[in-house]
Amino acid sequence: MSKVRIGIVGLGNMGSTHANQILAGKISRLELTAVADSDPAKLARVPQVKGFSSAAEMMASGLIDAILIATPHYDHTTIGIAALKAGLHVMVEKPISVHRADCERLIAAHTNKKQVFAAMFNQRTDHYYLKIRDLIQSGELGEIRRVNWIITDWFRTETYYASGGWRATWGGEGGGVLLNQCPHNLDLFQWMFGLPVTLRANCQFGKYHDIEVEDDVTAIMTFKNGATGVFITSTGEAPGTNRLEITAERGKVVYEKDKITYTRNVQEMGEFSRTTDQAFGRPEVWEVNIPAPSHGDQHNGILKNFTDAILDGTPLVAPAAEGIRSVELANAMLMSAWTDKAVTFPIDGKKYERLLKAKIATSKASKKKKKVVKITNDDFAKSMVK
Amino acid sequence: MSKVRIGIVGLGNMGSTHANQILAGKISRLELTAVADSDPAKLARVPQVKGFSSAAEMMASGLIDAILIATPHYDHTTIGIAALKAGLHVMVEKPISVHRADCERLIAAHTNKKQVFAAMFNQRTDHYYLKIRDLIQSGELGEIRRVNWIITDWFRTETYYASGGWRATWGGEGGGVLLNQCPHNLDLFQWMFGLPVTLRANCQFGKYHDIEVEDDVTAIMTFKNGATGVFITSTGEAPGTNRLEITAERGKVVYEKDKITYTRNVQEMGEFSRTTDQAFGRPEVWEVNIPAPSHGDQHNGILKNFTDAILDGTPLVAPAAEGIRSVELANAMLMSAWTDKAVTFPIDGKKYERLLKAKIATSKASKKKKKVVKITNDDFAKSMVK
Repeated sequence: MSKVRIGIVGLGNMGSTHANQILAGKISRLELTAVADSDPAKLARVPQVKGFSSAAEMMASGLIDAILIATPHYDHTTIGIAALKAGLHVMVEKPISVHRADCERLIAAHTNKKQVFAAMFNQRTDHYYLKIRDLIQSGELGEIRRVNWIITDWFRTETYYASGGWRATWGGEGGGVLLNQCPHNLDLFQWMFGLPVTLRANCQFGKYHDIEVEDDVTAIMTFKNGATGVFITSTGEAPGTNRLEITAERGKVVYEKDKITYTRNVQEMGEFSRTTDQAFGRPEVWEVNIPAPSHGDQHNGILKNFTDAILDGTPLVAPAAEGIRSVELANAMLMSAWTDKAVTFPIDGKKYERLLKAKIATSKASKKKKKVVKITNDDFAKSMVK
Repeated sequence: MSKVRIGIVGLGNMGSTHANQILAGKISRLELTAVADSDPAKLARVPQVKGFSSAAEMMASGLIDAILIATPHYDHTTIGIAALKAGLHVMVEKPISVHRADCERLIAAHTNKKQVFAAMFNQRTDHYYLKIRDLIQSGELGEIRRVNWIITDWFRTETYYASGGWRATWGGEGGGVLLNQCPHNLDLFQWMFGLPVTLRANCQFGKYHDIEVEDDVTAIMTFKNGATGVFITSTGEAPGTNRLEITAERGKVVYEKDKITYTRNVQEMGEFSRTTDQAFGRPEVWEVNIPAPSHGDQHNGILKNFTDAILDGTPLVAPAAEGIRSVELANAMLMSAWTDKAVTFPIDGKKYERLLKAKIATSKASKKKKKVVKITNDDFAKSMVK
């Protein structure tokens, strides 16, 4: 096999963006050979290749070796399982599933390890986050003591929420900012820091928008080594903030506005505290600017890695199995808010599924007919600029 | 009366600093005429004026019109009540008392409103915080939606904690970073944003130091209008951070490193969200730098205001009665951590007192003899530089 023939299911904003990139030849050795969408108008967005009205037909067509799943979230699980069973290589958009129990079902279907199963965590290709992860993993920072991520630059308008009837409903997305906007950040979070031991969150539902799901979240966490974490997100704040602060024995790292600043303690802070005869002194610090060449190849980089994994056995940047962790973080935040209790990891996936189904059963969003507004391509393109 | 004759009780680091400033003539119309400390070595720090071995003797001496209480925290209440009953004007160091019930007792003793009763919230004279408060109170920012204060630049070493046997014990200070270092920040917090409705906190006790009290705190809050708040503090982090971020309808204010940056939404964010036909658009913003002339006159400014209040009836910058709010915030954070529950305001002061007394009763710190280390003046001076 010298090329991978891929089909895309779901031609919404993301699916059609991926289609255009592949059709434009941006991903070497990856060829778009089919698309599927139940909406004929969306199928018409990609007239160059064979269109199907369902994923099942596309999978049975023999036209594809691999599938890219860009449907609303719930279908990631069902289509993903079907595609794995059909022997296809699978790339699934984030989140890999809506809740932990579904993630387990999806991951369990990946029995043939010759099939490549990856997730679209494109921000793992960002050199800034790669640098920060390297600072941690190399041991440069020493023991991590606190993490504080304010990631509130996900502003979305009422028009956005009116752009899909499934949007921001328990039945359609299974959540709000945590399930739609934050999977990337939650993935990066666990990829850099691992999962916490306990978590407690304050979620506000429809605080800023006429929606039933969360659009404002503040979570506090404790890690195994006693480190604490704070994660704050919202789709209601403009201009918003993306500021990650890491406190470690060797100093403080701040990532904000495309700059990584490392205030490096010449002596580790704990050792200084224990050995100095000063009461108010502090370790000497060096101000270090950590360079990063670019934000990386993002979506196309992940598609290229997927192609290389299929053709050459290249290790995946983002194996789908790792996608359970960001889902679990999102689930834990909602579960803590619903139950007003701390949640411990691993979370009880069955319990979460029951709680979510109860939300769906009493959802009002599914009953009121929403005016659906169409989003222009120019408008959607703004969501890619950070 | 053309001058105020003041006596200082407690000649530790703060008390002797105040004494030196007054003796150096830094506060117009304020004269140091007596000092009191049970430790003769400390009394010897201020040989210029009459010294007493107790506050009671100094109060009975007829040498003073006003008293500045700079003793360990618990004595603020008892000495404060005695001084008010003795008809003196009273300036009390922060915190005004250790817990809410004691604050109520102390404030209730202020029956003669001709006696001036003030608290040493010197940071209220800081022009940076005054500017931020003015942005809020003038309505410039519109409705506040989120407040995030990371105030972790209170690094203290093991030597600091060894410098007083009462330090960082339930019986000696009634808490750690919240009662000793943070009263200023908690006062500024309530002075700018008011008290929240509910609060939940993660406190870690002796995380960084060999102490029994909290040296690491993460609190999340909800305000009456639905706004959320995060307050993070620690004495274990170097270099630490002091960054206050306010999200409001009219934009975002960030105060950090002696700069106030206001990213001003030309249209309020909520109105933009509701009226635009864009899904991913954002309000236009102006980057505004808000100037502040200086950090103000701090301790001496508060002492001058106290003097002016006594002699001229000038309104107080920090009436002692307002000191209950910062104490209540600190108490709420500890109570939430101890009970693992959300705390609502006003807190149950009696319950808190019981919980604190139980901590004192089982305290191990009071039983083990601590090596007490002396702090040099040069070293203490570092605590004043921010």
